[in-house]
Amino acid sequence: MIKVGIVGGTGYTGVELLRLLAVHPEVELRVITSRSEAGRSVAELFPNLRGYLDIAFTGPDTEALKQCDVVFSATPNGVAMTSARELVDAGVRIIDLAADFRLTDPAVWEKWYGMPHTCEDLLAEAVYGLPEMNRDAIRTARVLANPGCYPTAVQLGFLPLVERGLVSLDGLIADCKSGVSGAGRGANVATLQAESAESFKAYGVPGHRHWPEIRQGVVRMSGQDEVGLTFVPHLVPMIRGIHATLYMRSTGDVGDLQALYEEKYQDEPFVDVLPAGSHPETRSVRGSNNCRIAIHQPTDSDQIVVLSVIDNLVKGASGQAVQNMNIMFGFDEREGLDLVPLMP
Amino acid sequence: MIKVGIVGGTGYTGVELLRLLAVHPEVELRVITSRSEAGRSVAELFPNLRGYLDIAFTGPDTEALKQCDVVFSATPNGVAMTSARELVDAGVRIIDLAADFRLTDPAVWEKWYGMPHTCEDLLAEAVYGLPEMNRDAIRTARVLANPGCYPTAVQLGFLPLVERGLVSLDGLIADCKSGVSGAGRGANVATLQAESAESFKAYGVPGHRHWPEIRQGVVRMSGQDEVGLTFVPHLVPMIRGIHATLYMRSTGDVGDLQALYEEKYQDEPFVDVLPAGSHPETRSVRGSNNCRIAIHQPTDSDQIVVLSVIDNLVKGASGQAVQNMNIMFGFDEREGLDLVPLMP
Amino acid sequence: MIKVGIVGGTGYTGVELLRLLAVHPEVELRVITSRSEAGRSVAELFPNLRGYLDIAFTGPDTEALKQCDVVFSATPNGVAMTSARELVDAGVRIIDLAADFRLTDPAVWEKWYGMPHTCEDLLAEAVYGLPEMNRDAIRTARVLANPGCYPTAVQLGFLPLVERGLVSLDGLIADCKSGVSGAGRGANVATLQAESAESFKAYGVPGHRHWPEIRQGVVRMSGQDEVGLTFVPHLVPMIRGIHATLYMRSTGDVGDLQALYEEKYQDEPFVDVLPAGSHPETRSVRGSNNCRIAIHQPTDSDQIVVLSVIDNLVKGASGQAVQNMNIMFGFDEREGLDLVPLMP
Amino acid sequence: MIKVGIVGGTGYTGVELLRLLAVHPEVELRVITSRSEAGRSVAELFPNLRGYLDIAFTGPDTEALKQCDVVFSATPNGVAMTSARELVDAGVRIIDLAADFRLTDPAVWEKWYGMPHTCEDLLAEAVYGLPEMNRDAIRTARVLANPGCYPTAVQLGFLPLVERGLVSLDGLIADCKSGVSGAGRGANVATLQAESAESFKAYGVPGHRHWPEIRQGVVRMSGQDEVGLTFVPHLVPMIRGIHATLYMRSTGDVGDLQALYEEKYQDEPFVDVLPAGSHPETRSVRGSNNCRIAIHQPTDSDQIVVLSVIDNLVKGASGQAVQNMNIMFGFDEREGLDLVPLMP
Repeated sequence: MIKVGIVGGTGYTGVELLRLLAVHPEVELRVITSRSEAGRSVAELFPNLRGYLDIAFTGPDTEALKQCDVVFSATPNGVAMTSARELVDAGVRIIDLAADFRLTDPAVWEKWYGMPHTCEDLLAEAVYGLPEMNRDAIRTARVLANPGCYPTAVQLGFLPLVERGLVSLDGLIADCKSGVSGAGRGANVATLQAESAESFKAYGVPGHRHWPEIRQGVVRMSGQDEVGLTFVPHLVPMIRGIHATLYMRSTGDVGDLQALYEEKYQDEPFVDVLPAGSHPETRSVRGSNNCRIAIHQPTDSDQIVVLSVIDNLVKGASGQAVQNMNIMFGFDEREGLDLVPLMP
Repeated sequence: MIKVGIVGGTGYTGVELLRLLAVHPEVELRVITSRSEAGRSVAELFPNLRGYLDIAFTGPDTEALKQCDVVFSATPNGVAMTSARELVDAGVRIIDLAADFRLTDPAVWEKWYGMPHTCEDLLAEAVYGLPEMNRDAIRTARVLANPGCYPTAVQLGFLPLVERGLVSLDGLIADCKSGVSGAGRGANVATLQAESAESFKAYGVPGHRHWPEIRQGVVRMSGQDEVGLTFVPHLVPMIRGIHATLYMRSTGDVGDLQALYEEKYQDEPFVDVLPAGSHPETRSVRGSNNCRIAIHQPTDSDQIVVLSVIDNLVKGASGQAVQNMNIMFGFDEREGLDLVPLMP
Repeated sequence: MIKVGIVGGTGYTGVELLRLLAVHPEVELRVITSRSEAGRSVAELFPNLRGYLDIAFTGPDTEALKQCDVVFSATPNGVAMTSARELVDAGVRIIDLAADFRLTDPAVWEKWYGMPHTCEDLLAEAVYGLPEMNRDAIRTARVLANPGCYPTAVQLGFLPLVERGLVSLDGLIADCKSGVSGAGRGANVATLQAESAESFKAYGVPGHRHWPEIRQGVVRMSGQDEVGLTFVPHLVPMIRGIHATLYMRSTGDVGDLQALYEEKYQDEPFVDVLPAGSHPETRSVRGSNNCRIAIHQPTDSDQIVVLSVIDNLVKGASGQAVQNMNIMFGFDEREGLDLVPLMP
Repeated sequence: MIKVGIVGGTGYTGVELLRLLAVHPEVELRVITSRSEAGRSVAELFPNLRGYLDIAFTGPDTEALKQCDVVFSATPNGVAMTSARELVDAGVRIIDLAADFRLTDPAVWEKWYGMPHTCEDLLAEAVYGLPEMNRDAIRTARVLANPGCYPTAVQLGFLPLVERGLVSLDGLIADCKSGVSGAGRGANVATLQAESAESFKAYGVPGHRHWPEIRQGVVRMSGQDEVGLTFVPHLVPMIRGIHATLYMRSTGDVGDLQALYEEKYQDEPFVDVLPAGSHPETRSVRGSNNCRIAIHQPTDSDQIVVLSVIDNLVKGASGQAVQNMNIMFGFDEREGLDLVPLMP
């Protein structure tokens, strides 16, 4: 049993983290802080947790957090970096579900997030928590940057081809679609049901913060700096799920793509390569930490089309955070994540 | 570990049963039969189960079923009663998720289901599987009739007041609302998304098969034969969930209703009486076996209003079936059902 | 052509009013005011209106409003009553889509709306704009109180039986269900798609502002002061539509109810009594000013069940406002409202 | 007034055609045939039409159709071509909403639709009814092939750049998303609400019948035979709407794209180029015949991204059919199509 603290936790990644940790056999949840909800029972805010969690939000309490083995930060961007130093110095390991430690170059971070990075030394050592690319470094991480939702789905789809150098890097396209929970639990006209249900739109085409994160991942996978990546996110009128439709052009004979993907991911507990010809549905991973992938080469085109689906709140956020915790503390990587997707 | 068989299992109660049994620690799933899907992998039909269940549908196979300790029947109405005798004689216990054994009077059954009952002797001994009313009888049942979805939500809401004789039985109203999964997985124009989403309607107002089942329950609870019950079901444009809004008129001073309900259900693992003034949401029980209940006495009226929510596929079907199995075989009643509801 | 002004108009009743007035042949829209959106093109805020309306919001401008023949007030409760006197004195007729003039008793208004009524003299002369009850008074109204959405659906369902004295007034039940657009266009966590979609709940059971409005209508219809009314509203995960399920108990032989309703409404342009045995769907009136009604007398009960559906934003708000305008100015009552419902 | 007949009309394009024709001032609907619904009132099948259309389906009746000026064929693929000759010889003009006359090459048709073309002479003269490309030919068409839904949205998005030769034709990508009404009104497990709502998936990636239609359009626009087109359709959990996300790579300096699109479509009644930086929502065209388009050139990429939205049942089917009828008979092109989109 490890002692766990959560900072924030009133948003959707928070309630999802609580759902997972509430029944994780190796976890004792010690403290959850929220300035706005201090004193309120967690189960009052999130009635799905009634009977599973008997804990209340407390105000900011660094001393209590310092008693933990690991602290999950489920706060807005820019918050985790303000307290990370103090926690790390106290021997606490940090898993940040926001973006503070995702981009290694502080100048890029500042450009996209509109504020200076105030914790560059820890940024330098922070580990990007995509287990399928980075498992060894994760084991010993003191500061873990949990990947963004779109970047998780996209990088798992790109990885096998890009790391082998089989596709052109100057015309990568990630046409992505996300359910509305990705926009968060904040009051917002644009994601009122009367606004977003029964409609579909792209957004952020001129520029989205997950673009530099995906680009950084492609650079890492390929070892090449010159990358031409187009990323277009769309809002889907459903609650959970991300579907990435990826377009890549081969640089020559790519061989048996189905076999390439199956081999790459054969030992991964949470990546499932579907049989040839499949079209993964987002609901087939709803509530679970799985990523399901299918590979296509349509007639009359040299484009390779890869389809990749995750639950944005699980593998795209809180589930992956728990997976990273499991790796960091030497638990079975599937512990607490043996979640059969809910269907229908 | 008990040996379990399933007959049917290609509908929504089937896939939900499989989701629950796949991770139940006391269950070994031995056989699942389906005439239409024989030979097909369960995980191919239901991709959410990929990685969790490695079994294929087989054709009808009574011999294999006879080797089981318990057989769940998830077939259309009228099927279970044709093979129940043979299985029971072989020492197999039966949990029927359809309606074959729900109505004790074969004449009533025939009137509402449009066919004669062909297994009246087992009907006479069959146990109605609502644990909150009938737990002791369930323990030793050979044939268990798993309640209907609406009757579960309604009876749990009526029970505390009706069994005490505190309300008039001649004007009971159950205004019920169900998600579309209640209509099943059969191809059907009326529940195409383009038809049923973005609309709301009542149906079956002249008569619905769950009316005699609820009425039978009220007679049992009250010990009175004269019951005036109005039941109006509605179709809600969502996938899972039932909300029952119950109207009862008091026959005198009813005392502290909140305390009455809390005491009644204090030891029930799956019934949660919410704090006074609450309005339960169906999503607060999504994917779980819980029933959540709130009690109101609106201003300027002697009507008592009880709100009761369940997940129609879990407490309203497959979860309650597993709960009954746990009781029948002496397992912890919560075994395999410690499911935190999925929210959002 | 009459000159029309709108105060407010940035919410859902506003955009719906604009959709209807944009193509109304007798209307010239002269001014639309909004403090928050002053200077912004209406079509920028509501892109569905691009190409149909070329007008911008202006700041508050009483002088411009005074030049109009009629002013629609689509503001929050409590606003219309502050400027009504001045407009009426200038010869402008007012149609208030909020609640300021709906309840004739200022004490009741104050109790339910939490503020004193500041325009009691106009309240005394204001006409309640339900044409099916009040058409003659509407013709000459200077101040018209457009009914609430629930009260419209409920009163049209109660009216034929209640005005004839055929049902008991002490046990009326209105179990009502509304789409989320009824909650308005304000930023609000509870109606985010991730919160309200895929869930169903009751709300306001202890007391809702439409209860006194419905009660007042029942008193008017019946001529009786003693009324026992229970009103339970629910939130449906869809955008538009209200479904009222009404329960009434007969006081004796009620005769042919189908004929009673058909005769009552045979000359009404917007009330459609469906054939016996029908179940109206909310989508069958989506985008239109129709109310569709069905009458049932379920087996084994003396309850009468009436089902009534409207589009909450049309017959429940802006369409009824235009219908009232047509009556007030002597236009064909259907002018601008010949809207075929959108299905699917 | 022209005399109009409809063959078929029991699906979604049928009910939408009826909604539009019911209030079209130049149209007298004389006959609507359906083998399966013969004798049934149209308004019984589609209750939204109650009060607007008083006509019943009749069985197949070529003689009645021959008395019409124009016949809309809203039947499955392969039906219109069997009776087209006889109707044309009788002087009737045909608007086919199915695919029979869309592909000019009968060999391509046979390959994709799996049956020989039985009316090749009329195929040779049939006019492809995309007014923005083909208005002059439409005026005199005897047989009009109404375009597919995806091809409409995609071609309107490609046209300005492709006809100027500004983009590379060997890497065109159309990533398209459609609401479920595109799958039709037939009973079908895959589009049950419980299956398709709350999920997102691609389909038909190995090959979809709209691919050759789009490809044929690109060949026409560009005058080039060598085209590399990738088309990936997806199913969106909403009822109406298509969103096409188009990726094109420039062959050099493309100049001011916003101006290019605005000039191209400035006189088009139903194509609306949004201001620079916009993201069109499908709901902004719901129920209307509009196509709304936005053009983007994301940072750090030479890809041009064009976003194009239509209502699949209106501009993507029945509305465009009425637009074509208006052109064919010399009516104002907007007649009967002045439909303000429904929002929310």
